[in-house]
Amino acid sequence: MKLLEALRAALGAEHVLTDAAAMAPSLSDWRGRYHGAAQAVVRPANTAEVAAVVRIARESATPIVPLGGNTGLVGGGTADGSGRALVLSTQRLRRVRAVDAANDTLTVEAGLTLHEVQQAALAAGRLFPLSLAAEGSATIGGNLAANAGGTQVLRYGNARDLCLGLEVVLASGEVWDGLRALRKDNTGYDLKHLFIGSEGTLGVITAAVLKLHPLPAARLTAWAALPELPAASALLARARGLCGASLTAFEVMSAPCLAHVAEVMPQVRLPLPLTAPWFALLEISDPESEAHGVARLEAVLAAALEAAEVSDAVVAQSLAEAAGLWQVREAIPEAHARSGGNVKHDISLPVSAIPEFVASTNARLEARFEWIAPSVFGHLGDGNLHYNMGTRAGVPVATAFAHEAEIRRLVHEAVAARGGSISAEHGIGQLKRAELALYKSPVELALMRSIKQALDPQGLMNPGKLLP
Amino acid sequence: MKLLEALRAALGAEHVLTDAAAMAPSLSDWRGRYHGAAQAVVRPANTAEVAAVVRIARESATPIVPLGGNTGLVGGGTADGSGRALVLSTQRLRRVRAVDAANDTLTVEAGLTLHEVQQAALAAGRLFPLSLAAEGSATIGGNLAANAGGTQVLRYGNARDLCLGLEVVLASGEVWDGLRALRKDNTGYDLKHLFIGSEGTLGVITAAVLKLHPLPAARLTAWAALPELPAASALLARARGLCGASLTAFEVMSAPCLAHVAEVMPQVRLPLPLTAPWFALLEISDPESEAHGVARLEAVLAAALEAAEVSDAVVAQSLAEAAGLWQVREAIPEAHARSGGNVKHDISLPVSAIPEFVASTNARLEARFEWIAPSVFGHLGDGNLHYNMGTRAGVPVATAFAHEAEIRRLVHEAVAARGGSISAEHGIGQLKRAELALYKSPVELALMRSIKQALDPQGLMNPGKLLP
Repeated sequence: MKLLEALRAALGAEHVLTDAAAMAPSLSDWRGRYHGAAQAVVRPANTAEVAAVVRIARESATPIVPLGGNTGLVGGGTADGSGRALVLSTQRLRRVRAVDAANDTLTVEAGLTLHEVQQAALAAGRLFPLSLAAEGSATIGGNLAANAGGTQVLRYGNARDLCLGLEVVLASGEVWDGLRALRKDNTGYDLKHLFIGSEGTLGVITAAVLKLHPLPAARLTAWAALPELPAASALLARARGLCGASLTAFEVMSAPCLAHVAEVMPQVRLPLPLTAPWFALLEISDPESEAHGVARLEAVLAAALEAAEVSDAVVAQSLAEAAGLWQVREAIPEAHARSGGNVKHDISLPVSAIPEFVASTNARLEARFEWIAPSVFGHLGDGNLHYNMGTRAGVPVATAFAHEAEIRRLVHEAVAARGGSISAEHGIGQLKRAELALYKSPVELALMRSIKQALDPQGLMNPGKLLP
Repeated sequence: MKLLEALRAALGAEHVLTDAAAMAPSLSDWRGRYHGAAQAVVRPANTAEVAAVVRIARESATPIVPLGGNTGLVGGGTADGSGRALVLSTQRLRRVRAVDAANDTLTVEAGLTLHEVQQAALAAGRLFPLSLAAEGSATIGGNLAANAGGTQVLRYGNARDLCLGLEVVLASGEVWDGLRALRKDNTGYDLKHLFIGSEGTLGVITAAVLKLHPLPAARLTAWAALPELPAASALLARARGLCGASLTAFEVMSAPCLAHVAEVMPQVRLPLPLTAPWFALLEISDPESEAHGVARLEAVLAAALEAAEVSDAVVAQSLAEAAGLWQVREAIPEAHARSGGNVKHDISLPVSAIPEFVASTNARLEARFEWIAPSVFGHLGDGNLHYNMGTRAGVPVATAFAHEAEIRRLVHEAVAARGGSISAEHGIGQLKRAELALYKSPVELALMRSIKQALDPQGLMNPGKLLP
């Protein structure tokens, strides 16, 4: 077969996988929701080899599915079932090309994991603040292709805000060298931002210049009980006002989420009794000292207690206690997974719209489905909620899944009516492609399609993803 | 004439200027370097009228030159000499559409001045941190079209980093409503970032959702004498490490710049004698208190004195003193303007490359031109230098201008060799269009052209700007 021969000549036969068992891990997403087929899984070693793969594939109009750590949640890295595609793994693009602490930048290849990138920054005495659950296996290339979010967005922004430059192999097989390490550069269209978040549909990201930050002197974490959800917005504004950019995380959790954790994972110790309807986790990264950070956090909480925005609060007294608070937060999705899952929505809204959205949408869902049990938590500081729907005790989770389409429609309509987003941080991939067609204007869809057409006229880059 | 009749019907005759005197202020840039001609200057009142203008212009393939406050430095808002264009003034798009303090956002129309936007934020108890010399007349639409920079970029980013959503009238005459007020939204290509910085060549920005920040409790300013330029990078890293995001500005100035200020503007009081070769201006915006900010700034300076990164320093003891320090910094371009100007370069480099760049490029210029006098200052924290070349005492400035092309080539080659940008914050416009062709790769130019072709196939949006 001519394609495979050319690929073997370019990459070496051992990096052109065609054996079913060898290909299998790259043909399903990690949750097992999507399954595809491919002519081969190819593993180029460097940018030139990625470009060679794209040029070879073009000759036979073979689609290319770029794949990083395969940790995506929307099927963005899984090939379709036709068996025509090449899966292009970036995992051998593993060089740290440059460390420039004085410029607060790191230039890395796409196949490094996020954890490895964090470690490289640390070795240079700097912080690369992107942080998310899958960081041990997610690649930085995938993080950029998906514009990953995570827990530090409030302070440091999404993946796109942490990237100064990119190298991309285009659909033409040419390499765009946009590896600029500059904070200011007004010389034309910002192509970098077009590739970031495009989920591999416009080209293959092969390397990036990342923005580093100073390491904070201390991280302090607190847990607060809130009398109602609007108090969370007030507490957020107060903490931002008093701490400025030192406020690095602000998470909220509803009491039912935590009750579920307590039930399913009794080893997780809740920091406060569940006598309040909502809880917040605040994190401060203090540039000065631990003592200063504690004092600031206590000042925020004392003022919030006085204003009745908070009914009770604890400040972690050690790194272990802080880690314990984060573990409670992170146990929420795990507890749900252990009890059969729920119907998930990764939404964002203006922060100001969240209390009303939650109250009215919970009420509408509860009026429609007497068995429904909302599990609401998320990154309130970013307006990003994981607005998930399970079932009450004694009702099988399957009941929720049986009504998934109706639940999703109700939730997404409520989000759209308030100017929100149906995918805050997970992207579109295959999962929400049809959904996107419902909520993007025809003008915006046409703009996106015209850009796709301009940059990938043959439609070979990750077809069937993102664009409806 | 059919075009003008249709425009008068759409906008009202008083908003279709065709009288030469009435059009004149919109047909030259404010520095008087560029002069153009137009069929009319039109002043639509709202987005629908902007869209009507574009649709009417399309019928006769009439080019459109969007114009805001006419404060640009690269001729980006000045029509060409053909007389075919319509100049589309955004100055009547003046509504504040929404203020949402709880979401830290402000939705404004393009024709508000930056100063008015700052005031609207202040009225909501928030900070809109974009700040630049022309803010009294520059419009926010123009700031976004040019991705303006200014003095607070180190902390808050460029204009693009302060914008969450846009409304744009496209070349088709359709309106793209991308006025989202969300911190996280991964639903497709980031079109907003494509229009920001595109200098009106892809559409007309009519409104924007802007990101607000908490008001700091205090701003503190210090002035430091530095033994050499590398000490500035060390001091910057130290200040970032100790103050984190509270460090909002870090400017450097060479002693010759300040000597020129002292000579031409003797009323400006220098804070320290000119016994050092370089000086830095540091600004801290403290979320806590003035006393805390002073203590932090003094801690930075004390450590820097100990490390010999700083030879002397003063901290402003009042708002008036702080304003005085900024006035010295801002007097530099004014002093040069008063003495006949100089050959200017708005460049950026990796921060780590700046000391070597300045030393070697100064040396090369001085070796080539015995009369040359470098005047170097800028936003060191952003890697952005105003690297300007005048003449020594007794040599007319005309000598520098007579060698402008050769000086520019030498400077820009040195910038390009170090991965820098030939336009850090002013953009390309007409001024640097030919220059861009020299320093962008053919791959990048082709990408930019393909996007232009996709979004403006007739080439009617601000022709002759940006794209070479």
